[in-house]
Amino acid sequence: MLTLVELAQLVQGEVEGNPELIIKGISSLEEASMEDISFIDNEKRLEETKKSKAAAFIVPSGVEGLNRPLIRVANPRLAWAKVLEFFNPRPQQKLGIHPTAILGEGVAIGKEVSIGAGVVIGDKAVIGDGVVLYPQVYIGANSSIGDHSLLHPRVVVEDGVQIGDKVIVQAGAVIGSDGFGFVTTAPGHHYKIPHIGGVIIEDEVEIGANVCIDRGTMGKTVVKKGTKIDNLVHLGHNVQVGEGCLIVAQVGISGSTEIGNRVILAGQAGAVGHITIGDDTVIAAKSGITNNIPAKSFYSGFPARPHSQQLKNDAAVHRLPEALKTIKKLEKRLQRLEEAKPE
Amino acid sequence: MLTLVELAQLVQGEVEGNPELIIKGISSLEEASMEDISFIDNEKRLEETKKSKAAAFIVPSGVEGLNRPLIRVANPRLAWAKVLEFFNPRPQQKLGIHPTAILGEGVAIGKEVSIGAGVVIGDKAVIGDGVVLYPQVYIGANSSIGDHSLLHPRVVVEDGVQIGDKVIVQAGAVIGSDGFGFVTTAPGHHYKIPHIGGVIIEDEVEIGANVCIDRGTMGKTVVKKGTKIDNLVHLGHNVQVGEGCLIVAQVGISGSTEIGNRVILAGQAGAVGHITIGDDTVIAAKSGITNNIPAKSFYSGFPARPHSQQLKNDAAVHRLPEALKTIKKLEKRLQRLEEAKPE
Amino acid sequence: MLTLVELAQLVQGEVEGNPELIIKGISSLEEASMEDISFIDNEKRLEETKKSKAAAFIVPSGVEGLNRPLIRVANPRLAWAKVLEFFNPRPQQKLGIHPTAILGEGVAIGKEVSIGAGVVIGDKAVIGDGVVLYPQVYIGANSSIGDHSLLHPRVVVEDGVQIGDKVIVQAGAVIGSDGFGFVTTAPGHHYKIPHIGGVIIEDEVEIGANVCIDRGTMGKTVVKKGTKIDNLVHLGHNVQVGEGCLIVAQVGISGSTEIGNRVILAGQAGAVGHITIGDDTVIAAKSGITNNIPAKSFYSGFPARPHSQQLKNDAAVHRLPEALKTIKKLEKRLQRLEEAKPE
Repeated sequence: MLTLVELAQLVQGEVEGNPELIIKGISSLEEASMEDISFIDNEKRLEETKKSKAAAFIVPSGVEGLNRPLIRVANPRLAWAKVLEFFNPRPQQKLGIHPTAILGEGVAIGKEVSIGAGVVIGDKAVIGDGVVLYPQVYIGANSSIGDHSLLHPRVVVEDGVQIGDKVIVQAGAVIGSDGFGFVTTAPGHHYKIPHIGGVIIEDEVEIGANVCIDRGTMGKTVVKKGTKIDNLVHLGHNVQVGEGCLIVAQVGISGSTEIGNRVILAGQAGAVGHITIGDDTVIAAKSGITNNIPAKSFYSGFPARPHSQQLKNDAAVHRLPEALKTIKKLEKRLQRLEEAKPE
Repeated sequence: MLTLVELAQLVQGEVEGNPELIIKGISSLEEASMEDISFIDNEKRLEETKKSKAAAFIVPSGVEGLNRPLIRVANPRLAWAKVLEFFNPRPQQKLGIHPTAILGEGVAIGKEVSIGAGVVIGDKAVIGDGVVLYPQVYIGANSSIGDHSLLHPRVVVEDGVQIGDKVIVQAGAVIGSDGFGFVTTAPGHHYKIPHIGGVIIEDEVEIGANVCIDRGTMGKTVVKKGTKIDNLVHLGHNVQVGEGCLIVAQVGISGSTEIGNRVILAGQAGAVGHITIGDDTVIAAKSGITNNIPAKSFYSGFPARPHSQQLKNDAAVHRLPEALKTIKKLEKRLQRLEEAKPE
Repeated sequence: MLTLVELAQLVQGEVEGNPELIIKGISSLEEASMEDISFIDNEKRLEETKKSKAAAFIVPSGVEGLNRPLIRVANPRLAWAKVLEFFNPRPQQKLGIHPTAILGEGVAIGKEVSIGAGVVIGDKAVIGDGVVLYPQVYIGANSSIGDHSLLHPRVVVEDGVQIGDKVIVQAGAVIGSDGFGFVTTAPGHHYKIPHIGGVIIEDEVEIGANVCIDRGTMGKTVVKKGTKIDNLVHLGHNVQVGEGCLIVAQVGISGSTEIGNRVILAGQAGAVGHITIGDDTVIAAKSGITNNIPAKSFYSGFPARPHSQQLKNDAAVHRLPEALKTIKKLEKRLQRLEEAKPE
């Protein structure tokens, strides 16, 4: 529990009302008890606060007219996330190296790590300070995990993969599998191209459950700082993903494609290989990207086109069955006119 | 081996012919030996039985004209499944707790469990009677597995997940990963929202291989009784799936979407977040659901529309290249008429 | 390091220039040092070799006009792959059986195997000569792994699966999960059909990370010789995949569908169950295959149609919004004519 003023410090907000008010948790407007703080993220929800039992509210800076204890903040959802985290810490994994973990030769382990039961770490791997490896994680030879990164159970990091600081990897993800590269020497005969490249996952990236990120053929597959990847996403060999992107569940990116910074790829979208997607672009769900996409654009459909064009096309298709009937009628009317035409 | 009458008891059917006939297995009409029983699921296949060597047949109740030993049942496919199971039990996992399994503090284990090699169970987890945990399964702290549930190798159940009775989870599935929830505080800067909620998997659910089911942000992600989920499906945070649904491979459901009872989602379909799909609705393969869908409907396409409308649109598109030519011709004919028009 | 003539023997090529030249690595034209060999795969890149520091080049047989040390080969990409492999061997797993591996009763192990930490092998499984099982692999009872096959970490092979020689399975793949088969006995009540069949993976198949291949209901799911499967692919029960196919990431194939030889299925394509796809056919990305597809065809879209037709339809749709306006105008012009028609 915290006082209102302590909570305000946590979220960099300003208190209105009794700063010594004791807060024991955070909850939605409906479910809040008289010892909880709750929150609204816009003025429209002001009316709803009247029915809430909450002891106090996190509100946007400008909101007026609520005569209850408050914390005013620039970004109420951010404040909510921080308070939620404070009151509900997830169970911590125990510090230390579990006796059943298997460490290779020349492994370097940082301070205050938690290495769980059945973890296997290959030769010469480097594990940073404060790293948490849940049980059954596999780290290949010559890989490195940066400080304060957290790998959930059964994550596989193959050999020669570099993972930055404060990276979170959900369970079952595979980083550094071989890419899908073959030389077809005759119809149906595919000779495997060795994949000697690596993977670089930069700081503060999050990778979802059962995601697959292939290693480079030569060179590296790269996911840059702060990008977040949802479950069951596939990144092919030598894909480059920029900073601060959001890649939603079940997206697939083929080999060597380059994605700019702050790109959003919605669920089940796919991209062919060897293309470029510009900065700040949004790709709608289920899109199929077959060509370079410029920066700051919004594309959808398959083949992906500017979304406004796609909407026009889709609306037109929806009117098409009627239009075909109209064409039939026009033909008949025209024929009648033609037949009536004076010779 | 069983006698015909014993088999009839197993499938709640009625014997015709020698009840003491010995049956040693079940096979297809073509492959059955003279000691096997075979089956037909409708009268149309009656003719095919004549060539079969099978000692006896499971047939639908009403079928006449087959002068061979029979078991008549209401649902021949159900009877087939039961007899198949009887004659072909899968290899059982050994009862007991393997010495290499690692159990946390305060774990409660029921009777007659099988806990395989390398299984890791977190503190205060509860494992019911008759549970089978294949090798390398991970159960997080404070989670519970109901009676007679069976988790295949490498399933991950994160902390605070409740799994009901008689649940089957195929290998590699992840239940309780963090949802894909972030507060974007500036372009490209995504602050992780803690996921403090849980997951509830009710009785008799089946979950496919490498499926990912995220935990709730607050509250729970829920899959209700008897729902069956195929491989590589993604369920986002706080998704609610009703009873008796069928969710086919590679479907993705975004956060907070609610799916009614007895809904069928065919393969590779996707749904955006925060929508509702009504009871008894069928969604065709590859559909993209962007809005609420009423009960008892059949939707397809992207954006998903009633299937009958979608079929009309698709058929119209297929006629469109020809229609565009027709429009060109109409224009010319019209122009000719206009030019010929008497002034 | 090798001499030029030794490298030529490795790739079955012909040397031009000093055969005793020492080569220490292989690199791209741009990055090659004076001790590296580089390569071009067609004559058009001849000009680029002039700026390269490489000591020698692998070139197509017919290329003329390059007065530098050369190896001429029929297939430069194949030669490149072989030389890349030679100079960059991946870290080898240690030979022997790790003391933490758990072997069931009656397991047969071949010569010169590497069985890693935490591997679990069920009763009566057979492991061939030269097999590499990375740490944490699971092999079920009565399964067999052919000579020189390599299974990456956390691969699950369920019971009764037969894997051929020289097969490579990337991390996290599941082979032999139960198929998605139920008898619906009443709305929302789905009785599980036992899956007593197996899986056969023939020689030289490669299977990607987190792929799921279900076992047969009865009979076998089969992937034939030399087929390569990318990440996150789903193959349902009793699917038959021919020889030498390429199945790209996130493809899903429903139960009992038969795919011919040398078929290419591009990313995120899907096929319904119980259909046939002919030999040498190409299915474009994201296609949805709902019917039998003849041999030697190129299909795309959903429902999949011949690609040339699909392109026509798509181009027509793109012109549709304009065409609808034209129709409106035609109607007006026609009406004007009709009104002007002499009575």
